[in-house]
Amino acid sequence: MELGNKTAEILAAVRDRSPMVHHITNKVVMNFTANVTLCMGAAPVMAPCIEESPEMVKFARALLLNIGTLDLPLVESMMAAGRAANEAGIPVIFDPVGAGATALRTRAAEMICRHLKLDIVRGNAGEILSLAGQGGKVRGVDSMDSLGDRIDIISSLAADREWTVALTGAEDVVTDGSRTAVLTNGDPIMGRVTGTGCAATTAVACCAAAWNDPFEASVAGISVMGISGELAASTCSGPGTFVPHFLDALANLKKSDIIERISARVPE
Amino acid sequence: MELGNKTAEILAAVRDRSPMVHHITNKVVMNFTANVTLCMGAAPVMAPCIEESPEMVKFARALLLNIGTLDLPLVESMMAAGRAANEAGIPVIFDPVGAGATALRTRAAEMICRHLKLDIVRGNAGEILSLAGQGGKVRGVDSMDSLGDRIDIISSLAADREWTVALTGAEDVVTDGSRTAVLTNGDPIMGRVTGTGCAATTAVACCAAAWNDPFEASVAGISVMGISGELAASTCSGPGTFVPHFLDALANLKKSDIIERISARVPE
Amino acid sequence: MELGNKTAEILAAVRDRSPMVHHITNKVVMNFTANVTLCMGAAPVMAPCIEESPEMVKFARALLLNIGTLDLPLVESMMAAGRAANEAGIPVIFDPVGAGATALRTRAAEMICRHLKLDIVRGNAGEILSLAGQGGKVRGVDSMDSLGDRIDIISSLAADREWTVALTGAEDVVTDGSRTAVLTNGDPIMGRVTGTGCAATTAVACCAAAWNDPFEASVAGISVMGISGELAASTCSGPGTFVPHFLDALANLKKSDIIERISARVPE
Repeated sequence: MELGNKTAEILAAVRDRSPMVHHITNKVVMNFTANVTLCMGAAPVMAPCIEESPEMVKFARALLLNIGTLDLPLVESMMAAGRAANEAGIPVIFDPVGAGATALRTRAAEMICRHLKLDIVRGNAGEILSLAGQGGKVRGVDSMDSLGDRIDIISSLAADREWTVALTGAEDVVTDGSRTAVLTNGDPIMGRVTGTGCAATTAVACCAAAWNDPFEASVAGISVMGISGELAASTCSGPGTFVPHFLDALANLKKSDIIERISARVPE
Repeated sequence: MELGNKTAEILAAVRDRSPMVHHITNKVVMNFTANVTLCMGAAPVMAPCIEESPEMVKFARALLLNIGTLDLPLVESMMAAGRAANEAGIPVIFDPVGAGATALRTRAAEMICRHLKLDIVRGNAGEILSLAGQGGKVRGVDSMDSLGDRIDIISSLAADREWTVALTGAEDVVTDGSRTAVLTNGDPIMGRVTGTGCAATTAVACCAAAWNDPFEASVAGISVMGISGELAASTCSGPGTFVPHFLDALANLKKSDIIERISARVPE
Repeated sequence: MELGNKTAEILAAVRDRSPMVHHITNKVVMNFTANVTLCMGAAPVMAPCIEESPEMVKFARALLLNIGTLDLPLVESMMAAGRAANEAGIPVIFDPVGAGATALRTRAAEMICRHLKLDIVRGNAGEILSLAGQGGKVRGVDSMDSLGDRIDIISSLAADREWTVALTGAEDVVTDGSRTAVLTNGDPIMGRVTGTGCAATTAVACCAAAWNDPFEASVAGISVMGISGELAASTCSGPGTFVPHFLDALANLKKSDIIERISARVPE
């Protein structure tokens, strides 16, 4: 299956090149997402403060920005590192955690979206709608109820902004405005473990660090995350043992696991 | 057994309503206590900075303040969020980590205790004594040597301040000044895992977010924590594997586990 | 074997005295290294802000400084705590994470090395070379290619600065300028888990908190870390399950494990 072979090829490229992925991210998931980066085969670096965050970009092949526990200096640091990444031509991956929930998060997300060239945005329905609403049309989360509506909304957003958008939920959608994939890998237990959304963004960033096509990198990252989650869900005994099992599954993931389990498909 | 049925009922209410619990907490335990919140059946949010911490309160059914790794801006943020919680009428749960150890912690704890209406305070003997000593009488930790003395001291403190106080140690005491319970669930291995005290406060906060009686919510939270700890201690092979086993036990906890194991009793 | 018996004796001293080890450390590894401290048998305290970091030193038997996620206020706090530790006569252990990678890290490391009396420095080849280069001679990492060269460089550094230097990698070298040991415990999987280097520094700090000879304490800490890593590598199924297994192995480590497995030897 084409997206399966492509995803396996991208994961092999990550493992082969071991690209450094610079995270400016939230304090809840720093340890977990550093380990996810290593289990993907990439190398994490986390340099949050503005005095060094742009300089650290020079070692990195991708920059991930996550506003899960933000404050004003951190947003300034993200802007500085983002500009450095744009200048260096490395992909910037944004996780707008909680955009829409508070004025600070919504404004920070808006500033990042407006002033940086982003390659990939990964979020849930509320977060992505909050970004889409910044253009003027504010819609409720129920506007995302049907798959067709979700695809319409995020395809327009992706085309307008020149982003690849990865909307995750029970059913994930990845689109760059012209190409779209629907993905259903994963397990409900992942909703009971903190940081699985943030980890999906990390997986996408690792793929983007080793692969030039952001749409394919996003499909690969979300798929690898979901498949590893399925494997871990089948061997763990709850959300606590899920975490170490998931990291093992990710580190040990074989091409055959991907080919057999990948759900990514082009919607009709 | 009455406290057993009540505790099972409270845990069922947490799982049923999945209340959001806002933590402004220490950096060592953010990931662990976010996962404890999820395994209790509640939803964690952690928004530390003052620009959004009061606004985030509007989504929450309880606010937890923990000074384990504090600095001055964080204390200001706690005060602002605490005032918002008091206005909204949601319970505030305080964990005075290290109160009495440094002037900063003692002063921060004093400010929080004096200017906010707290519903529940959970700490160890030294921390609770530090708060009690702020009224003028400073006592040594040996004043807490006998169970009778511990009950006397914290009952007076609870009655004076209109708090529910949960004093944890080898033997836990929960009191609101009129009602008192003594609890002995738990396992010594929990003293060898960082953040188990902070996690007990999280468990209490989750219960208080779904149950109006702070005394009953505290007994339930401490009991559920201790029983899950006993179950994990019997299956793990050390303090490392304890953590995932404990989270699994908490997520999978059944009413029958609670009824069979709960130790909470009214002292004679 | 002499270093085996000595290491077992030092670990027993840590467990017997349970010394408090004050960490001012990076946010990625706070939880993990707090648990490593507890599994060593010592007691962690983490008080990052300058308003209390020097005062907290009075409870501690060792101070660990780690610049993995630094900013300017944190470096100021490290300096203040370091001066308090120097005055109190407790050992200061430094982990120069990323020294040489950015100007901020290199300058922070230089300030710490110049203005504080350090007892032990633990780092990888690039980090240690960055510190050595501050004296004027800058060399490339290839100057560390052969074991003999590595020993020459770090022995000079240790003698010049009056430090014990622990250089870790596939092969570790510990030296105080007059005594030198080469160590090969550990497992490659440790390179796929975030914070294992930082955890080695924590293990060394715990030993230094209970044992007056920094060279022997460093050999013991690095050995105990490596041996526990070998034991965990043989029972885990990947880098995810490695972490809980490693903590269990460390907490359950027996004198016979040390005697049978220790690799520390004096180079010819």
